Amino acid sequence: MNTNFQTHTVKSFGEELDRLSDDVARMGGLVETLVSDCLQAVMRRDGDLADSVIERDRQVDQMERDIEKRVIRLFALRQPMATDLRMTIAAYRISHELERIGDLAKNIARRCRVLNESEPHEMTRSVDRMGRLVVSQLHEVLNAFSAGSLDDAHSAMKTDDEIDEIYNSLFRELLTYMMEDARTISPSTQMLFVAKNLERIGDHNTNIAEMVHYVLTGEDWRRDRSMSDPDRES
Amino acid sequence: MNTNFQTHTVKSFGEELDRLSDDVARMGGLVETLVSDCLQAVMRRDGDLADSVIERDRQVDQMERDIEKRVIRLFALRQPMATDLRMTIAAYRISHELERIGDLAKNIARRCRVLNESEPHEMTRSVDRMGRLVVSQLHEVLNAFSAGSLDDAHSAMKTDDEIDEIYNSLFRELLTYMMEDARTISPSTQMLFVAKNLERIGDHNTNIAEMVHYVLTGEDWRRDRSMSDPDRES
Repeated sequence: MNTNFQTHTVKSFGEELDRLSDDVARMGGLVETLVSDCLQAVMRRDGDLADSVIERDRQVDQMERDIEKRVIRLFALRQPMATDLRMTIAAYRISHELERIGDLAKNIARRCRVLNESEPHEMTRSVDRMGRLVVSQLHEVLNAFSAGSLDDAHSAMKTDDEIDEIYNSLFRELLTYMMEDARTISPSTQMLFVAKNLERIGDHNTNIAEMVHYVLTGEDWRRDRSMSDPDRES
Repeated sequence: MNTNFQTHTVKSFGEELDRLSDDVARMGGLVETLVSDCLQAVMRRDGDLADSVIERDRQVDQMERDIEKRVIRLFALRQPMATDLRMTIAAYRISHELERIGDLAKNIARRCRVLNESEPHEMTRSVDRMGRLVVSQLHEVLNAFSAGSLDDAHSAMKTDDEIDEIYNSLFRELLTYMMEDARTISPSTQMLFVAKNLERIGDHNTNIAEMVHYVLTGEDWRRDRSMSDPDRES
């Protein structure tokens, strides 16, 4: 076999993987903006920003489809092994997680219009705090992926416990508001879903962190998800 | 090339696809039992049954991992084309949807213990009705997959609108209970999450139906998911 040809093949495969990785990073950047913007929309009751989040989520869906096509082609034509195989699987899975985060951001944006009809809430502040933490966690896992940083991945996994704690205390706070004043029940249930969606974004961020761990170490990234639905205890 | 060898290869690939399809069907059967059992657990406040659902969900997770390994091997070694490619992708995606349905059944089962602490609810009946419809929809899509029935797949997609309607009316019903009697707020929010999880199972069932459509027709199965979060309007 011609060595030049082999080198060419190897180089080209590396390039394909790099391009895949760049696409995932670009998708991550867009999703990060959507999560940040949907929170701004809810905080400011900004319907136009909410509409823009809903609109931009279509781009995220398209990006996932493009990445999927490229991954299937890589599997079929290149038969990646070892590290390359892990990287290809991780890119596929991360794009899937990002697509779900985009969906959740869209769902949060949609609640903005319902909230618009009701008066602003004190609880908005707790949701804002939870939201900021979720956005910074997403930023951290995307950095972990781009820079191949195990430390950032592990730090993001730890943040998930903090997010779950805030969610639990927010859940109790919302119940208290509802019990004290029946007029807050309808907007509170909306906020409950906003908080639940943020908590789920935290879970997806953690899944991404686990995949970065898997790419970098080769160890299984799946952990016991028994803590992934904290409000069941509330 | 030896014809016998070729026949053997083709036959063996067909066998591998059949085995993959059988595994997905078996996984579907287990997940269907979990959804049905988690509902029974909530209806009868049966903590033991709830625990058994949580325990059996581990099997579902293991099944997904096994299917994933087989799919990756098929991609790498067999480079499936056309119908076989569609079938392989669909098996992968369906196992992923089933894993998520198993998770949601587990989440519903977990709420059983919290509900146990509060008195039974009238609203249980509406949740029961919604649950039965979701179970029958899942049964229908699994049949559609096993029998390759486009009619069953389309019928399951239509059921999703009915599930969304029940969810919307249930959401309003729960709000009314909460406003009328503050003591119902805590169990009602638990039931709200049970209903929301059922609605999400309906969405995953619909995703499976869309993939059956894709396998059978080759047309893209992705639809506009703008209706997938109906409670935003409530």
